[in-house]
Amino acid sequence: MEEPTPRTGRAPTSVDVARLAGVSQATVSYVLNDAPGMRITEATRAKVREAAASLGYVPHASARTLRSGRSDIVLMPLPRAGMGALAAAHLDALGEELRRLGYKVVLYGDDRGKGIGAARDWAQWRPSAILVEAGRLTRAAVRQLHDTGIPTVVALGDAPSPLVPTFVFDNEAIGARAAEHLAERGRSSIAVLMPREKGLEVYSRPRLAGVSRVAAAHGIDVQPVDLGFDEEEAGGLVARWAADPHRPDAVFAYNDDYAMLIMRALEDAGLRVPGDVAVVGADDLPLAALLRPRLTSVRVMAGPTAADVAERIDAMVRDRSRDPSIVFELVRAEIVVRESS
Amino acid sequence: MEEPTPRTGRAPTSVDVARLAGVSQATVSYVLNDAPGMRITEATRAKVREAAASLGYVPHASARTLRSGRSDIVLMPLPRAGMGALAAAHLDALGEELRRLGYKVVLYGDDRGKGIGAARDWAQWRPSAILVEAGRLTRAAVRQLHDTGIPTVVALGDAPSPLVPTFVFDNEAIGARAAEHLAERGRSSIAVLMPREKGLEVYSRPRLAGVSRVAAAHGIDVQPVDLGFDEEEAGGLVARWAADPHRPDAVFAYNDDYAMLIMRALEDAGLRVPGDVAVVGADDLPLAALLRPRLTSVRVMAGPTAADVAERIDAMVRDRSRDPSIVFELVRAEIVVRESS
Repeated sequence: MEEPTPRTGRAPTSVDVARLAGVSQATVSYVLNDAPGMRITEATRAKVREAAASLGYVPHASARTLRSGRSDIVLMPLPRAGMGALAAAHLDALGEELRRLGYKVVLYGDDRGKGIGAARDWAQWRPSAILVEAGRLTRAAVRQLHDTGIPTVVALGDAPSPLVPTFVFDNEAIGARAAEHLAERGRSSIAVLMPREKGLEVYSRPRLAGVSRVAAAHGIDVQPVDLGFDEEEAGGLVARWAADPHRPDAVFAYNDDYAMLIMRALEDAGLRVPGDVAVVGADDLPLAALLRPRLTSVRVMAGPTAADVAERIDAMVRDRSRDPSIVFELVRAEIVVRESS
Repeated sequence: MEEPTPRTGRAPTSVDVARLAGVSQATVSYVLNDAPGMRITEATRAKVREAAASLGYVPHASARTLRSGRSDIVLMPLPRAGMGALAAAHLDALGEELRRLGYKVVLYGDDRGKGIGAARDWAQWRPSAILVEAGRLTRAAVRQLHDTGIPTVVALGDAPSPLVPTFVFDNEAIGARAAEHLAERGRSSIAVLMPREKGLEVYSRPRLAGVSRVAAAHGIDVQPVDLGFDEEEAGGLVARWAADPHRPDAVFAYNDDYAMLIMRALEDAGLRVPGDVAVVGADDLPLAALLRPRLTSVRVMAGPTAADVAERIDAMVRDRSRDPSIVFELVRAEIVVRESS
């Protein structure tokens, strides 16, 4: 299909549009910026839109923001790396639904800043809503954002924020599901692998907490084990287990990659899975079903749909929701039982 | 450390700041918006900044954009999902470096729109630079963006764009490296797995093209094979191979997950890897070294550093670079030889 091709040369202005449409520049700006409460006939609106289209004139988002006082931006100052394919897919789906509701979804490249400094940076955009990790919000930061007139600030976290409404992504439940399953299987001692890579503590600590909570209720032993993603190191760990009559009879491996690493080491050391040691992973990656024995893994399922979440955000913007008692569970963790446990 | 806590209540304005600092509102706006060419003493600037800080006043990004005519935004209307951990990590590093150069990095949630409609949407932000997949740019879209005064538009793609400067992410080279290695190994017939999942064609087609180009130069047979990520289907494929004297003696598996799938099926069918069939994956995931035989895989390495790329973008903004002959290779593909080939 042939596209309309705007004139080349200098950037067209609203003055050009006004001249072509035979209306005032103010009218052009009212029409193209959807200024509220303006009485302008549909005929005039149509003339202005046609003129703008034929000239390739684009109204200025900043101008519209200043005029309307709001930006319709949903600002998400989140990192992409380490987010995981699942979370990224959820985020894209959410963006799609928010656009359907008329918002501009902005993943702002600031993915580290926290506290009031970051809050001032975010506030510059005058977003309708901000979604950010709970750990980057402080009382002063939240006050700053509310004082600047941001309708709603939503925290993302493992647990409800004491400051603002929270979307909970429950890593603790991932460890809990694994431990509940191993308790059912009658295991008495769980080694919990804690990856040494930087940045994973935010996931591994709550997962360990989930294992510990459930294990305590069942009188099961829990031992956290620091481990790098390294075959030799895993081999050394398993060699010590092979020589130890009091070795753990179960491993929660943090994720499926570490589960594959430890299963390989157990096989090489002649320890049987699940006979001697049961192994449970997390993420339910493609590799899980391809391992022998097939890997039991905790799968994280989206609870509410992206449309649900988008509508929730839209409602919070319109109600200017600020009540920390508003908590919304984003995911639920399920155990996928296979052969390794 | 205690943070300064701004007053609660209504949002503070530049008028409040002017009153507290004992200067005019214009002066406040000049100072806080870094208006160029304004003669204002450091003492006055300090007074204004202190007043703004104590009130928790945040200047309006939109106002600054309108006043300065530029936004310092680098707009990346890219999807997160399907980006891959490596690309996401590169992107975060690039964002970090661009912020260091004073840009605001915006991953705009529009990750599908193409052509002039999308161009008008992007142009609203008046970004200093736009990075977007080559396939979403049309001649009319590029003209629209340039006419709106966007200093530079950069395409991301497998091959140079005919319209604007391009950052090339060379998927073709991934297939080429695999085929060169299999040619050295004296293989005569390569099956190229083509995942059936939607959205992967943009990666699988150029990888197949790379295999075909190199194979042709060595008189090697190439057969593309559609395959879903399914053990039964992979088993059926390999069963046909087991019965076929003219079966391929090598597989390029698209990525390491598919390599693991096909290796499992080959093992179950009693075909030896690499004896009967050599297998090469791509991505060099953690699982590659854990498979038995250990998986040969094409690893994608970052060519230039994030700092290099950021400086290149900054230079293109300042030069208003629009010459399609500017091409910048983002990555290089290397074969990691292990036991499966």
